[in-house]
Amino acid sequence: MTPAHAERGALILAGGRGERFWPWSTASRPKQLLPLAPGGRSLLAATFARATRSLPAERVVVMTARDLVESCRRECPGAIVVGEPMGRNTAPAIAAAAAFFGERDAFVVLPSDHAIDDEAAFTADLDRAFALAARDAVLVTFGVKPGGPDTNFGYIQRGTKLANRVHRVARFTEKPDLERARQYVASGDYLWNTGIFVWGRHTFMQALAAGRPAIANAFAGLSFAPRATREFEAMLAERFPDLESISVDYAVLEKAPNVITVDASFDWDDLGSWGAWARRQPQDARGNVLWGEAVPVDCDRCVVVGDGFPAAPLGLSDMVVVATPQGTLVCRRQDTDQVRRVTEAVRARGSQG
Amino acid sequence: MTPAHAERGALILAGGRGERFWPWSTASRPKQLLPLAPGGRSLLAATFARATRSLPAERVVVMTARDLVESCRRECPGAIVVGEPMGRNTAPAIAAAAAFFGERDAFVVLPSDHAIDDEAAFTADLDRAFALAARDAVLVTFGVKPGGPDTNFGYIQRGTKLANRVHRVARFTEKPDLERARQYVASGDYLWNTGIFVWGRHTFMQALAAGRPAIANAFAGLSFAPRATREFEAMLAERFPDLESISVDYAVLEKAPNVITVDASFDWDDLGSWGAWARRQPQDARGNVLWGEAVPVDCDRCVVVGDGFPAAPLGLSDMVVVATPQGTLVCRRQDTDQVRRVTEAVRARGSQG
Repeated sequence: MTPAHAERGALILAGGRGERFWPWSTASRPKQLLPLAPGGRSLLAATFARATRSLPAERVVVMTARDLVESCRRECPGAIVVGEPMGRNTAPAIAAAAAFFGERDAFVVLPSDHAIDDEAAFTADLDRAFALAARDAVLVTFGVKPGGPDTNFGYIQRGTKLANRVHRVARFTEKPDLERARQYVASGDYLWNTGIFVWGRHTFMQALAAGRPAIANAFAGLSFAPRATREFEAMLAERFPDLESISVDYAVLEKAPNVITVDASFDWDDLGSWGAWARRQPQDARGNVLWGEAVPVDCDRCVVVGDGFPAAPLGLSDMVVVATPQGTLVCRRQDTDQVRRVTEAVRARGSQG
Repeated sequence: MTPAHAERGALILAGGRGERFWPWSTASRPKQLLPLAPGGRSLLAATFARATRSLPAERVVVMTARDLVESCRRECPGAIVVGEPMGRNTAPAIAAAAAFFGERDAFVVLPSDHAIDDEAAFTADLDRAFALAARDAVLVTFGVKPGGPDTNFGYIQRGTKLANRVHRVARFTEKPDLERARQYVASGDYLWNTGIFVWGRHTFMQALAAGRPAIANAFAGLSFAPRATREFEAMLAERFPDLESISVDYAVLEKAPNVITVDASFDWDDLGSWGAWARRQPQDARGNVLWGEAVPVDCDRCVVVGDGFPAAPLGLSDMVVVATPQGTLVCRRQDTDQVRRVTEAVRARGSQG
C-alpha cells in the first residue's frame, strides 16, 4: 500500500470548554484561548504557530463551538475556522473536517490546549509522521516518555518495534490508578498518549467505517472548498444531531489494527491544572510563578495570577492565588487538580441566587 | 463648678483613610464607609445610629475629608456633614467642630470606624457621661476592660475612684509591647482607650487653651448655624493650613488634670484588622466567616469576602481571602495586622508601572 499523499493539512480541535483553569477560564474564554503559552500567547495561537511551521495557514482547519469561532479566528489568521452546532466529541468532528482535505491528503489532528515548547523537535517529529503515513496505510499516534507515574494521562503500550522510535501500538489504556501507573512507567513499554494523530484522509475514513460506520457514512465523499465554511456549518447542523457522541480513541484507535506510535522527541503536557501549568513557567528568586498584576509579599513557591487588579498573597508558601474579574481561587499547589469542586460549588451557589 | 449644659451634641470623626481593610478599603471608600457593621451597615452608619439614640440627628456633626462629604451624608441623613481641606488630626478638628455647638452645650466625640454592638449599654453609658460632664468641669473618657494583653490599643491607667465605674485618669499610655501589656492586664488598673470622649464645649476649649493655645485661639468664640456648612468649610480652609497637626490625646488629655474615665459596660473593638473584624462575625458550621459571594470548599475557620464575584478558597484552614474589584488579599488569619506591607507593595508596583 502506498498512499503517497498529495498534500498536508492540519485539524485543530478547539471546541473544549475546559474549566480546570477557573476562574480564568470561562465558557466564552475556555482554556485554549487563555494566554497560557510562552510569550503571553494563547494555547490555540501557539498550536497554530506549531502547525504552520510545517504547512500553510490556509491548510489548517480549526473546529470549535459556534460562539467561539470569532475568537478562534483572531488566534489563527488565515485558517479555516468552523463552528459545530453542538459537541459530538472527536470522532464526528474529525470525520467532518476531513471534507476540507482531498481524498489523497494526509492531516495531523492537534488538541488546541496542550503545551509543547520545543517547536523544532515537534516539526521534525511531525515531518516523520507524515512520511510514515505516506508510506503505509497507518494511523500514527505520538507517545511521550512518561516523566513519572501520572494518573491524569492515558497511556499507550508499545508493541512490535518497526523502526527507531516507531512501534506498533499494543493497546491504549485509560487513566490508570497510581499503582498501575507505576507499573507502566517501570516497564518502559508505556508512553503518555498526546492525542496528536497523523493519517491519510482515506486511511482514517476506512478505519472509522470499520469502527463506527454511521459516522463514516455521514461524511463519506464530501468535499468543501476552504471558503465554504457556511455551507460546511449548514451540513454539520443537518448531520451532527443524529450522530453518536464518541471520541476517536473509542471509535477508531482502540480497535484498528494499523495503529503505530512515534516516541515524541518534543516536550509535552496537557496542562490539566494550574499546577501543571506552573511547572512549566519561569520563577522568581523565591520560586514564585507570577502572571499579570501579581504582588506576592514574603511568599515562596506560590503561583500568583492577577488579571486586571492586584493579587496579593502575604506570607504564604506553595499556594495558588488566581484573581480575575470572574472570581478568585485560592488553594494549595498540590490541590489544583480539585478545581472542579470549586466550579461546581460556584455553579450551585449561582443557581440558588 | 456647675456647667449644667444646655444641650447635647455629637461629633463623629470620619476623616480617616484606613488601609487596613485593603483591598476592600480604598481612598474613596475608607474603613468607616465599608459595610463592616452588623446588618451590612457601614461603621459610620452604625456610629450615627448609636448617637441618635441619645440626641437628634441635626445635633450630630460629621467631620470628614472634602471628597468624602457626599458619601458620609448618605450614611448620616440629617446630620451636619463638613469636609476638612486637609487632615490636621483630632485636636483642630474637634476645636473647629465645637463651633456648631453652643458655648454651654456638651458633646460626645465618636470615632466613626469602631465596632460597638450593644447599643443599649452604650446609650446608658453615654447618658451617664453627659451627666458627669454636666455636674463638673471634667473631660470624660471611656475605658474598656481589656479582653487580653492586646498591643494594638492604647491603655488608660485608672487613678482615684470617684464613683462606681468612674475614676480619675492616672495616665494615658501608648500601645505597649507584649510584656508591658501583660503587666497592665494583670494589674487590673488599666483599661483600653476607646477614643470616645464627652465634655462641655467650654471645658474642652479651656483645656485646649492650656495645652495648645494657638489651636484654641483659632476657633475661640466662633458660632455656626447647622446650615452654615459652606461658611464653616471656608473658615476651615482659611485657618487649618497654619495649624499644628496633633491628636487630642497629646494636645489635651495627657496634660489636663480634670480627666476622668468611665468603665464602659458596652463591648468595643477598634477593628484594626480583618482578623479583629472576623472575631465579631457570625460563623458557619465549620467556623468560617463569610461575606458576599463567599464560596469556601472544604475550608475551616477561614474569613472569605467576595465583593462582586465569587471568592473560592479550596481546602484551607485559618486563612483570609478577600476578593474585590480593587484587588485580592490572601494571608493567614494571624497575619492580618501586616496588611500594610501589602498596600505598600501594591503602591510600589503601581508607581513602577
